[in-house]
Formats: sequence, structure tokens, C-alpha cells
Amino acid sequence: MAKNSTTREENYSQWYNDIVKNADLAENSAVRGCMVIKPYGYAIWEKVQSTLDKMFKETGHQNAYFPLFIPKSFFSREASHVEGFAKECAVVTHYRLKNAEDGSGVVVDPDAKLEEELIVRPTSETIIWNTYKNWIQSYRDLPILCNQWANVVRWEMRTRLFLRTAEFLWQEGHTAHATREEAVAETEKMLHVYADFVENFMAIPVIKGVKSPNERFAGAIDTYCIEALMQDGKALQAGTSHFLGQNFAKAFDVKFLNKENQLEYVWATSWGVSTRLIGALIMTHSDDNGLVLPPNLAPIQVVIVPIYKSEDQLNAITQKVLPLIEQLKSLNITVKYDDDDSKRSGWKFNEYEQKGVPVRVAIGPRDLENNEAEVARRDTLTKENVSCEGLAEYIQKLLADIQNNLFQKALSFRDTHTYKADTWDEFVDLLDNKPGFVYAHWDGTPETEERIKELSKATIRCIPFNNPKEDGKCILTGKPSTQRVLFARSY
Amino acid sequence: MAKNSTTREENYSQWYNDIVKNADLAENSAVRGCMVIKPYGYAIWEKVQSTLDKMFKETGHQNAYFPLFIPKSFFSREASHVEGFAKECAVVTHYRLKNAEDGSGVVVDPDAKLEEELIVRPTSETIIWNTYKNWIQSYRDLPILCNQWANVVRWEMRTRLFLRTAEFLWQEGHTAHATREEAVAETEKMLHVYADFVENFMAIPVIKGVKSPNERFAGAIDTYCIEALMQDGKALQAGTSHFLGQNFAKAFDVKFLNKENQLEYVWATSWGVSTRLIGALIMTHSDDNGLVLPPNLAPIQVVIVPIYKSEDQLNAITQKVLPLIEQLKSLNITVKYDDDDSKRSGWKFNEYEQKGVPVRVAIGPRDLENNEAEVARRDTLTKENVSCEGLAEYIQKLLADIQNNLFQKALSFRDTHTYKADTWDEFVDLLDNKPGFVYAHWDGTPETEERIKELSKATIRCIPFNNPKEDGKCILTGKPSTQRVLFARSY
Repeated sequence: MAKNSTTREENYSQWYNDIVKNADLAENSAVRGCMVIKPYGYAIWEKVQSTLDKMFKETGHQNAYFPLFIPKSFFSREASHVEGFAKECAVVTHYRLKNAEDGSGVVVDPDAKLEEELIVRPTSETIIWNTYKNWIQSYRDLPILCNQWANVVRWEMRTRLFLRTAEFLWQEGHTAHATREEAVAETEKMLHVYADFVENFMAIPVIKGVKSPNERFAGAIDTYCIEALMQDGKALQAGTSHFLGQNFAKAFDVKFLNKENQLEYVWATSWGVSTRLIGALIMTHSDDNGLVLPPNLAPIQVVIVPIYKSEDQLNAITQKVLPLIEQLKSLNITVKYDDDDSKRSGWKFNEYEQKGVPVRVAIGPRDLENNEAEVARRDTLTKENVSCEGLAEYIQKLLADIQNNLFQKALSFRDTHTYKADTWDEFVDLLDNKPGFVYAHWDGTPETEERIKELSKATIRCIPFNNPKEDGKCILTGKPSTQRVLFARSY
Repeated sequence: MAKNSTTREENYSQWYNDIVKNADLAENSAVRGCMVIKPYGYAIWEKVQSTLDKMFKETGHQNAYFPLFIPKSFFSREASHVEGFAKECAVVTHYRLKNAEDGSGVVVDPDAKLEEELIVRPTSETIIWNTYKNWIQSYRDLPILCNQWANVVRWEMRTRLFLRTAEFLWQEGHTAHATREEAVAETEKMLHVYADFVENFMAIPVIKGVKSPNERFAGAIDTYCIEALMQDGKALQAGTSHFLGQNFAKAFDVKFLNKENQLEYVWATSWGVSTRLIGALIMTHSDDNGLVLPPNLAPIQVVIVPIYKSEDQLNAITQKVLPLIEQLKSLNITVKYDDDDSKRSGWKFNEYEQKGVPVRVAIGPRDLENNEAEVARRDTLTKENVSCEGLAEYIQKLLADIQNNLFQKALSFRDTHTYKADTWDEFVDLLDNKPGFVYAHWDGTPETEERIKELSKATIRCIPFNNPKEDGKCILTGKPSTQRVLFARSY
């Protein structure tokens, strides 16, 4: 048991920080707001990357790479985009340092001032659409289906590891289409890809929907999103897919000759998920003993720990374990045999528990005699003795069980933390005392949405797809409403 | 045949640019010195990444991620490092823009000036060693074997796509060790990994050696490198591995308790290769018809083009081709079937030739009758009719032949362009009239090295490993020398 961790009940925020630290996932760097992603945390991100990358390619996308820097003037071309992104950002103004005259170090060389400042990309729509202008002449050049894996910078004042950092890693898809219909279909398709990934690999249930105008991406016509519920009852936006209409095509003058030989503006989408997903992963599944990882994203799926007193015993166990390792590998299961003699088995048990390794197998001399192993699962913290005959297949099935159990557990948590509120008092009472998703009526105006946010700190997470119609009254204004929308306080 | 390409003889530099453009690899962006890597170029980089990443992991390394920004003061801590890297760089001075008062757009907000400027990383030794300080207390924490895949920025004045760009993509390994011996062994090991990769995947022969003091990485005790020869007789440094001694440990005060319980400074290495490798790939193998790719790095290894006049013919060919595609895939061969009806087969032949696809298979109605296909290889531009029986295995062997042939061809080119010079006149005459590698005597002083560079524009590429000892006289000063070193003009 991880004795040094804060429990969720004591202090949820500290519990989160403890898990990130104890599982060795990331840490704050010397640069304000920028994190260091440590090897174990990065290994999870690599799993996210490789899985999503495969899904993107299977849906016809290709990767490319666009510049880190964006000329300042590009942001001004799309009116709402500049408001959303060009304000809190890292600005490059000079391209040279020189030795200080007093010998104190290096200083910015005033002679090396850029004519136009460069912004470190907070998102790449502008530079990409400026590039697409040269790639697109006719309908034959469409669609363009590009994705980029990159770092981006948004100058956040209050940062938290993975959840909100000044620099973060992400992917951003940017597609160009000949018709509105095709662009809308792409926007939807990629949201479904995200939902598929988050539910089936991260084991996090999500609600798919469309953002209200206030929560839209700056420059989008519509923003689709997937929303997940964390264990403290706060929502986390796990991915977004934007239908950009012709906004960026107009801003960067990107037209194409259609089949009728007429010039038209190109239709656009963009979509992204980031290292924030690792924050969602931590907060959805972990417990008071540390990180809990779904097998489909665990860098180590199975750890095998030998229990021994003598070298002979270790050798005998190793002989038994080696074929098991081979069998597991042949089933595409990632296994680590930890025979490090400098650490005690108790230390190892604790270590892998904190790191969320889904399955731990322990084998000692008694187990050898009985041709058994002790198999412990991280999600339920239960263990049992299992025969070594067919152990690899047993573990394979167990990993699938754990993956499924984590999803069901999270789904059940979400279901029991999803409420309806019919009055303002009910609404605020729920948010304060039973945090979770709250379905409530809203009069559909941005002003009311803004006012609800000011008064309750809750936002409309989305208007779910296929939302049932239901007549009612707005919880704040009492004006008529035709549907409940999904509210929550959020990360 | 690619009619619009400049030949190597006409204008080597333009030939290179044409290939990059015609093969759709990359282009200049709106941001000075920054390139856009287009999907086909990026697909080659992905092959480089995935292959190297596997090799790094097999040699015990893990990936991590460190901040994009480095506080200015960090650079001043290592005296030679600051000279080498902190001068031409992108400097972030502000973190906010605001609307211009005259409504003309956005301007830098003077109130949002950073207390200390941030440098966009040109390389990450400083920020990483500042981080390692907290990771290392005792010998038990060592070694640390981290690698990072990242973008870096060096403010280059004269840029060329892939070869020299302000922003480029690379990997940088940073390792920490308890002993000098271990760090030196790591430096060597990674150079051998690079040589293995560049020779066996990129089919580029390299000479391994150590840099002379003038060419060393700023902050290193020793820089090992692999040097390749391009078709214009200029050398290209394809990868470097640095033994950093205790320089960065001292600069960032990183000490560890050794087994004898004494505090010691940690020993370091760093090593990197970049998107520059794609420039080397292009210049080593390509011909006047366009790009030539070694099969081991080709995003498409085999393209199949149907030759047909009617839809019935196309259908019959497709029926024949589908099982071949399955067989090729089962042999892990990447295949594209281009049945795009909007392009003529001649256009396709040209397209895939320019893109360097190693093997092209064409099948028409006559071939169907004869149960044959026309198989063309990109490296030799030869083609032959091959029976469809066992065609997949034939192609598999052919790809291996092409890979081997490209390496042998490049090796033979290098051998016939490697010379010895015994006098200054000979030396300069070779460089001017028979460009290539030149082995010549040098008196071993940095001053002479510098003078040779000024006078001839040639640099010491390396002192090869296991260089034979031979008494001679320095080509410039006539002073005694004990070995020839490898000179060339270079990229």
C-alpha cells in the first residue's frame, strides 16, 4: 500500500499530484508552466500516439509537419481566432544574443530584432491554411487529409501537470474539402475516432455532442467534443473536432475550381487531442494506492516478481518464468520480469502498484512445488493462485477482463453521478454537494450561458448528439427551452 | 522520364531542389528558414524515426520529453556551449499580444515582458542537466538513458530544405553515467547504432571517426561522427555522438554518491541525428530522373499500375492483382495499387519514378494472357517480364537486391572519389577539380586546421577510427605529422 499518498477524500488535487509524482509520470520544469514528461509518462503517451496514429491512417490521413513559428499578422486574418489564441502566447522578437559588455553573461542583441514578431504556435490553422493556399487549385487537389504531431504553447497562468501546461504535446488534424457536407462528415468521423479510442483503449466513457456557441473553438462554425467525468465529479473535455466552414479559406484566400469550373472557397475541419488525455486517464481510474492503467495503454501489462531467498531459488524460478515470458510475448503482451536483486519484493509490489501495472505475477519456491503462481490484478486489488498450466492464456483473458471492468466501473460512476436539475437552487445544490454531470434546461442564449457560468462556475459541456427533445424552462431565466443540455464544472 | 528536372551536371544545387519539389517532399514556408515537410517527405522521416526508435530501445534507452524553452541564463553556465549555441537563436521576450490602438491588428504588449528571456532550444543539454540534477543522488540512479524526439531551432542565415533549416526535427539522446569508461562506451555504442542504421537502412556508406578540436560540439570533450560522401563530392555529417565528460555535470552541479560513498560529478553523453538525413538520402542515391529510395526506407516499396482500356480489362487485372497484394503484405512489403482512373499510366510511371518507388509492377491484358507482369526497378531503370507464379517472392528478393545495389553503388562512388594529397597544390587541385574525400597530413594544431579551412574551404571531417599511422608532413605547414586525416568540403 502506498502510504505516502494523499487519498481522494482528503485532498483530491493533492492526490492527483501525488500519483503523477509517485508513478514517475512527469514533473514541473525550471521553465514556468512547462513540464518534463518522464520516461514512464512518455511511454503512456507513445501508446496513445501509436494507437491514434494507426486509426488516423486507417481513415485515410497522412502526417506532415508545419512550422513552429507563425508570423504575428497571420492571427489577425481570422477575427475570432485572434481573440481566442493570439493573446496569451510566446512571442519571439529577436534572433540573436550577444555577450554582455560587463561580462555578466549573454543579453539580447538589440540589432537582431525581427521585422515581424513570430508567435510560437498555439494551434496551426493559420500557418497551415496559408500553406494549403498553394496546394489547392482544383477539386482534384481535394480532399487534403493531414495530421501533425507537435508541441504547442499557450501561456497559461495557472498550470497543472498534463491537465493545463504552457507547452503541451498534441496532434492536430487539418483537412480541406470541396463541399460543406464532406467537411461536416469528416468532423463527425474524427469525433467518432476519438470516442472509439478514448472508450476502447483508455476505458473512459464519453458523451459526444456539440459545443454551445460560447464554448466553440475560436474560428469554428461548430465544435464537436467528447466529454468525460472525473472522480471528483468535474468534467474533462477529452477531444474536439471542429467544422471550420470556409472561415480560414476566406482568411487566407484559398479557392478551388469546382467540377463546374467555378471558383469556390474550400471547406475545412480541424481536430485534436493532447497530453491532457493522460490527466483524464489518471483521474478516471486511479485509486488511493496510486495509478491504475487500462491494459490497452499500459507500457508494462504484466510484471513478474520472483520471491526467493537463495540464488538457487531465483534460478529455479527464472527457469520456470522464461517460457511464460515467451508465451506472453507471443500473445503480444508486454511483460517485465523484475529479478533486480537490489530491491526487496515488497518494495517491488508497492512500486508496480503505484505505477498501475494491470497484472502482477509472483512466484516463490512453494508456488514452484505446486506448479502455481500468485496472480494479482491492480484494478480490484484481488489475487489468486493460478496453475502454471495455461497461465499465459489465463493472463490474456484477465487483461481483457480488467480493460472491460475499468470501463464498466467508470461508466457506472458516471451514471451514478449524472443528475437532472429543474430549478436554479437544485442546480447549484447538486454542483456543490453532488458534483457530476447535470442535465438542465437552458434558454439557448449566450448571455444566459455566460451568466450561469459566472454564478455557478458550471459550463455547458455539450449538447449531446441525438439529445431528446423535452419542453421545459431555463433554470436561470425561466424562459422556454426545448431540451436539456449537459452542464458541469470542469477542468 | 522526368523532363522538367535539372540534371546533376547542369546544376547540382538546382537538381537537388527539383527533386525535393518533384517528389513532393518539402517546401519553404512563409516563415524564413522554416520548412513544411509534406506528407511523402514526412513518411520517410517516420520510417527513420520508427527504425531508430526501435534500435534505441533495444540498446536500453527510453524516450522522455523536456521543455521547448530554455532560460537564457542556462546557456551561460557552460562556457564553450554558450559560444556555440546561444548566439543565433530564437528569443522569446514577451508572453502576450494586445489589440493595436489604431485597430491595425495585434501588437506585442509591453507590459508582458518576461523577467528572463527564453531561448527556443537549439539543443537540450542545459535544460536536461538542470533536470537530471534532481533525478540523481546515488550510483543507484545511474545510468540514465533518455532520448527525446523533438523540434529544435538554430537561426541559420542561409537555409536549404532538409540540409540546413532554422527549425528542424531530430532526436537527441542524453545519458548520465557513473564512470568515464561507461560514458565513453555509450558514446561509441550510439555512433555504431547510427552507422548501422545509415548503412543498412539508408544504404549510405559512412566513415566513423572522431572530430578534430575545431569541429567538436560546443561543450564536448570528444565528438564522434559518421561522414558520408554526396554525389557532388561534398561530405555530409550524418550523425554525431558526444562524450561530454563532466562538463555539464559541473555546470549544473550534478553529483552522485558513488559506491565508496563519495560525491562525484556525473559523466555525460549526447547524440543526435536529424531531418538532415533526408537530405543525405536524396543526394546519395537520386539520379537525373528524380528521387531514388532504398527499399528499407521507402514509404511505398512496390507500386502496381494496371494498363487497361476498358473497365472489363481493369476488373480482370484487379482480380489478378488482389491476391498478389495480399501476398506482398504478408511478406511485410508496403504496396500501393494505383487504379486511379483519372490519371494515365504514363503519368503514373513518371510520378512513381520521381518519387523513387523502388519497384513498379505493370500489368496489362497481354500480361494477363501470359500470366506475367512487367517488373521495373528504380535503381537501374531496367525492367523485365516475370511470371505471376512466385511473383511476390521474386519481388521480395528484388527489394533486397536493390537495397544492396544502392549501398554498393554508393560505396563504389565513394571509393572512386577518395584521394590522397601530399602537397598543398595537389590538395587544392583535388578539391577544385576532383571533389571528394582527401586524406592528407596535418600538423595537429587548431591554427593550421583553421587556416586550411580559410584557404581551401575544406574541413577535417574526422580522424577515422583505427586510422593507420604514417609519418608525413603537413600539407600546409610542412611540419611533421603521424597520420593522414580526412578532409573534404562539406554541407
